[in-house]
Amino acid sequence: MIRSKRRLRMGLVGGGPGSFIGPVHRIAAELDREIELVAGAFSSDPDRSRDAGVLYGIDPERAYPSLEAMLREETARPEGIDFVAVATPNFHHLPAVRAALTAGVPVICDKPATATLAEAEEMAALVRQAGLPFALTYTYSGYPLVREARARIAAGAIGKVRKILVEYPQGWLAGEAAGKQAEWRVDPARAGAGGCIADIGVHAFHLAEFVSGLRVERLMADLGTVVPGRLLDDDCQLLLRFNNGARGALLASQISIGERNGLRLRVYGETGGFDWKQETPNTLIQHHLDGRTELVQAGDPALGPDAVWASRTPGGHPEGYLEAFANIYRDFARQLRGEPGSLAPGIEDGLRGMRLIETAVDTSARNLGWVDFSGGQDN
Amino acid sequence: MIRSKRRLRMGLVGGGPGSFIGPVHRIAAELDREIELVAGAFSSDPDRSRDAGVLYGIDPERAYPSLEAMLREETARPEGIDFVAVATPNFHHLPAVRAALTAGVPVICDKPATATLAEAEEMAALVRQAGLPFALTYTYSGYPLVREARARIAAGAIGKVRKILVEYPQGWLAGEAAGKQAEWRVDPARAGAGGCIADIGVHAFHLAEFVSGLRVERLMADLGTVVPGRLLDDDCQLLLRFNNGARGALLASQISIGERNGLRLRVYGETGGFDWKQETPNTLIQHHLDGRTELVQAGDPALGPDAVWASRTPGGHPEGYLEAFANIYRDFARQLRGEPGSLAPGIEDGLRGMRLIETAVDTSARNLGWVDFSGGQDN
Amino acid sequence: MIRSKRRLRMGLVGGGPGSFIGPVHRIAAELDREIELVAGAFSSDPDRSRDAGVLYGIDPERAYPSLEAMLREETARPEGIDFVAVATPNFHHLPAVRAALTAGVPVICDKPATATLAEAEEMAALVRQAGLPFALTYTYSGYPLVREARARIAAGAIGKVRKILVEYPQGWLAGEAAGKQAEWRVDPARAGAGGCIADIGVHAFHLAEFVSGLRVERLMADLGTVVPGRLLDDDCQLLLRFNNGARGALLASQISIGERNGLRLRVYGETGGFDWKQETPNTLIQHHLDGRTELVQAGDPALGPDAVWASRTPGGHPEGYLEAFANIYRDFARQLRGEPGSLAPGIEDGLRGMRLIETAVDTSARNLGWVDFSGGQDN
Amino acid sequence: MIRSKRRLRMGLVGGGPGSFIGPVHRIAAELDREIELVAGAFSSDPDRSRDAGVLYGIDPERAYPSLEAMLREETARPEGIDFVAVATPNFHHLPAVRAALTAGVPVICDKPATATLAEAEEMAALVRQAGLPFALTYTYSGYPLVREARARIAAGAIGKVRKILVEYPQGWLAGEAAGKQAEWRVDPARAGAGGCIADIGVHAFHLAEFVSGLRVERLMADLGTVVPGRLLDDDCQLLLRFNNGARGALLASQISIGERNGLRLRVYGETGGFDWKQETPNTLIQHHLDGRTELVQAGDPALGPDAVWASRTPGGHPEGYLEAFANIYRDFARQLRGEPGSLAPGIEDGLRGMRLIETAVDTSARNLGWVDFSGGQDN
Repeated sequence: MIRSKRRLRMGLVGGGPGSFIGPVHRIAAELDREIELVAGAFSSDPDRSRDAGVLYGIDPERAYPSLEAMLREETARPEGIDFVAVATPNFHHLPAVRAALTAGVPVICDKPATATLAEAEEMAALVRQAGLPFALTYTYSGYPLVREARARIAAGAIGKVRKILVEYPQGWLAGEAAGKQAEWRVDPARAGAGGCIADIGVHAFHLAEFVSGLRVERLMADLGTVVPGRLLDDDCQLLLRFNNGARGALLASQISIGERNGLRLRVYGETGGFDWKQETPNTLIQHHLDGRTELVQAGDPALGPDAVWASRTPGGHPEGYLEAFANIYRDFARQLRGEPGSLAPGIEDGLRGMRLIETAVDTSARNLGWVDFSGGQDN
Repeated sequence: MIRSKRRLRMGLVGGGPGSFIGPVHRIAAELDREIELVAGAFSSDPDRSRDAGVLYGIDPERAYPSLEAMLREETARPEGIDFVAVATPNFHHLPAVRAALTAGVPVICDKPATATLAEAEEMAALVRQAGLPFALTYTYSGYPLVREARARIAAGAIGKVRKILVEYPQGWLAGEAAGKQAEWRVDPARAGAGGCIADIGVHAFHLAEFVSGLRVERLMADLGTVVPGRLLDDDCQLLLRFNNGARGALLASQISIGERNGLRLRVYGETGGFDWKQETPNTLIQHHLDGRTELVQAGDPALGPDAVWASRTPGGHPEGYLEAFANIYRDFARQLRGEPGSLAPGIEDGLRGMRLIETAVDTSARNLGWVDFSGGQDN
Repeated sequence: MIRSKRRLRMGLVGGGPGSFIGPVHRIAAELDREIELVAGAFSSDPDRSRDAGVLYGIDPERAYPSLEAMLREETARPEGIDFVAVATPNFHHLPAVRAALTAGVPVICDKPATATLAEAEEMAALVRQAGLPFALTYTYSGYPLVREARARIAAGAIGKVRKILVEYPQGWLAGEAAGKQAEWRVDPARAGAGGCIADIGVHAFHLAEFVSGLRVERLMADLGTVVPGRLLDDDCQLLLRFNNGARGALLASQISIGERNGLRLRVYGETGGFDWKQETPNTLIQHHLDGRTELVQAGDPALGPDAVWASRTPGGHPEGYLEAFANIYRDFARQLRGEPGSLAPGIEDGLRGMRLIETAVDTSARNLGWVDFSGGQDN
Repeated sequence: MIRSKRRLRMGLVGGGPGSFIGPVHRIAAELDREIELVAGAFSSDPDRSRDAGVLYGIDPERAYPSLEAMLREETARPEGIDFVAVATPNFHHLPAVRAALTAGVPVICDKPATATLAEAEEMAALVRQAGLPFALTYTYSGYPLVREARARIAAGAIGKVRKILVEYPQGWLAGEAAGKQAEWRVDPARAGAGGCIADIGVHAFHLAEFVSGLRVERLMADLGTVVPGRLLDDDCQLLLRFNNGARGALLASQISIGERNGLRLRVYGETGGFDWKQETPNTLIQHHLDGRTELVQAGDPALGPDAVWASRTPGGHPEGYLEAFANIYRDFARQLRGEPGSLAPGIEDGLRGMRLIETAVDTSARNLGWVDFSGGQDN
């Protein structure tokens, strides 16, 4: 355990030139001054890794050509990294996590956990064995009003949950995928067997379970590849049944032209409902059985401690994606410091996500209709 | 054929005291002065029918205790009714339509067509045989911007359609159904085998086909009864496949607390998309592949003739549900006068709707997963 | 007094071919079947008046070439008109009202009352002398949620009112005025001395006073003519002080490109606030001092009797401009029948509006800054 | 000039325990890794300053009891601060800026520039004399879509500007001011002569001029104190005339219950208009004369270089207040590094703001109506 309030030192894996998510990890990690990026294995090309190090503004000596080198050098130095952040394509998550944990270094890893369920199971075993802090950056669970909805539902604000709709439309892959971001995401060798379901479907899935406190236990998956020539799904529709009997649907798409990042969650219970949209994250609609509709807003005096903790500014000063991401890092910092209260997703969430991906890909391809999703040691 | 511009005379069946939809039919029919309510069989109780007649402001002599009486008297008088409007519970649609058509009187009928598919098939045969004007009040196809989206899609504005999402959440049956409106809708004897799917699901279904110009040809239905003790479905989720290969989903619910009448249609194509919400019907979002997003608004100079025809006021003067409903009546009036251009839904739409209801109820109950929906003479 | 529930007979003055507001009066008057258009003096050109009569669907015999002819003939027939509706350009209001009242016929008149304050004062004297029902169609006071806000404020929902913002941006006169609608509105001989202030500014003014229950007692006017060559103001900004000390501002414009009919009212008090927008009239925001924000919606169970009376459909079925206009006519019908409860604006509102126009035009032209607005017998 | 890409070292003045704006400056400054907080004079109480240093996570040795101490020590050390950030109450800005500039240290200072216009004039003289980088944190000019609107207007997208509405309603001072934030803002000794006008009115004023590229040259001010017992204005309304003849209004309030931070700017020109709201900053409405309405969104491909530079994430990943604030710091960093392109407000903006405050306070108190605002060397 690290002594309170020292700034934690992060080593980033991946996130080299052209990466979207690398700089996001850096900003999110450092936003609250709990953490500092001090080292990185940004690329397997030594020159590119060093260039990235300069761009990130770290000591060039600490921009390594491989994770292995970083772990070796950093664990040897007096003020080496406290943890590793993995921001590589999915297929590289498992080896990175394995190497770090083996070296005794905690890990925060991008989602989904891995490229395959088998890998995720191995990862889960490694995490359990290592007994070290581990988190997954399901970013959207970091938004203050997402946490508020979760807390209110847990406190009974809408009674027993009956219905959950989660949708995640995007349009950026409606044409032919172009650019570094798109490239690996539509390549089965690097992304894994899931396309849209793995890239954004799991976010929606995690959000639904995180906020409702329920678990999907049956599902019916309808994955499709809309853009000709593509190898992975780019549109997915799932019908869901939760472990309390609640009904639900999950709709995610990357071919919905004009949609940017339209993640939206609606949860209806016996006495009320919630409605939240990622693109206007500072407002949460709460419906009441008696007909009242409330606009709950970030900064409101009635918010509970989770939402307050997750906010930095007063009401009306919008916080967004980077701040939500930063909250996952702050949660992880709490874990590293041995403090309680972290809501950061962990390896169980990762396992569930991978199981969702594989189940959806498999059962949709085989046209199986409703299938069981209750099993597994991760529940 | 009726000579142009004479005001058409309507006889209403149903819509007696306590009815929501009866007065709506009256207002919609008369809004544009094309039609006048002159007679009615408002209730099978003679006193109640007569009271309703007084309330509607018609000649009390023409408030009849039965449709049969109305048809007999009205066809005998010099200036009798030109058509019958049927606004009774579903199970009564077929006998009413049969009686009117047999008497040589055209009919406009509330949706869904009937209580069962078998009835709808009989109704279709009657309509074809009679050769008289017939329309169904799928109200939402009367909105100006719905017709604009339809016209733009037909003109290629978004290329080939790839994906259709139609949702219709309501919350008014989240508690125990109460009041006259709710009563018959949750009673299989009067509503038919479908609850939510028959009451609002068919609206969503019709809207999706109407706007896209496509036909559902496969579907997977998941109907549920959420409120304990209820006999019909109150929440339904369908996955769809259209006849051009487009993917889709239809979500309708009557237990989504806080939702009033949240019908929303999103259609995505190869080069753009549309997004329309019934509760703010005077705005239509159009997405373009190049990243532009347009707010198309009622009254805009770029609107096509269908939308212009369907509007009465300049931009910024909101028109709503009654005006959309009135547009169906104006369409029907065009049919009665032998004028072209009507977009009013007909018996084929009615048949498709009933086939949807029965297919969804049946295949969901038997848990059949994906089923064919391409057959039938109605395509 | 007319015996209850007989349909009232209306004679329309103005509203001939090309008129926007004429058909609106007709639809609004007839919407609820309280009133029927039976006669009209639609144009001073006999042929055009007759053509309009055919278009409106009335007995061609009752389409008169002048108001005088209509009054003479109609008062002589057994079932002649019960009242006159005046929908002519402003400069013609006074003679029309004078003729009707002199003939003993009640009047409902479009706003503003007249073209000049002197005319309004004469009209007020005539109305008082005649002792007949009289109303002005300040349409926006007919919206259900406007009446709800009024009722809640009167009941103390936001405490003492402190601040009122009312804005009314339009863009349709941003270019050179074209078409029949624009023509007379920018012509001082027909519209009077006020342009934007008379056409829409008075609507905003009336709405602010109607909802708050307060009276403007001081003001500072800044009227401008933005489009070159125009003779009347097309943009106006007023600072206001109300009779309880509340501060306020009124902003109206006809050169705000892209704005359709953006009337919006915000009222803030000691313990809460209201926010209403005409273009989405079925939602009213209510702010509470404790930080809660409510979306009050048409059809909500908590609405008071005024809003309920003014609505025809359940929540989620949008009503709009025509329905609001119809509520003014229903109010007027209550007056005609001797029933209580009318909230329709009367001649006092008309006088206040004309005084506003003249005060604003005059003091702005003379650059007088703050001026008194408390005087007059109309307060 | 500092050699490119070395991280710049910041010393913060103010921002001690309980401060809202201090941590905001820290996060904003460090967000993009251009700048690092290394020292501070957080409080005049040595213990409190040291505590704040620990909280901020800097070397406790560099948490000074006074700006003077900080300047003395930091200029003497090898890797001392590169600049000072001033986040104290207004009355302390001038002495802080004077001390820093005298010591040869560049300054970024919170707005408004000072507590009085005389102080601002002295500050302007100091800045000009020192020839050192200087910026003011008018945060809202840092939003990407604000800069996009500015660039489009400069490029002629809406033709000549005709009308500007800028409003800034807040409600947090509707009750009795409480808490550290409110305390000094309602105290003339610390805030200066302006309350609402100085706290938020100047933000609105700066935004209007920044985006339009115009200058206010006449104004009419109406400042009021609504909450009993308060010494400064808490609600202000200004009518404006710009140097190209455009008309405008500025409405700011701190007693508008329910409003969080409702800054909104509307600019209308001869051929179009823009509409932007701070609370949903990632959307900008663009109106076109031909009736089209576009939703311009952060991340859109059509955005110009200023907006692209000011964004960190792809479309649909909301950025907010902290990111906008960070853009001002990045601009300032460009100045420090001698790079071109900064859009950060400078001392001229500060002077104009102070002149606005004093003019508004003075002319409103003396009820002067329209007054000249064209003079001064700052135009």
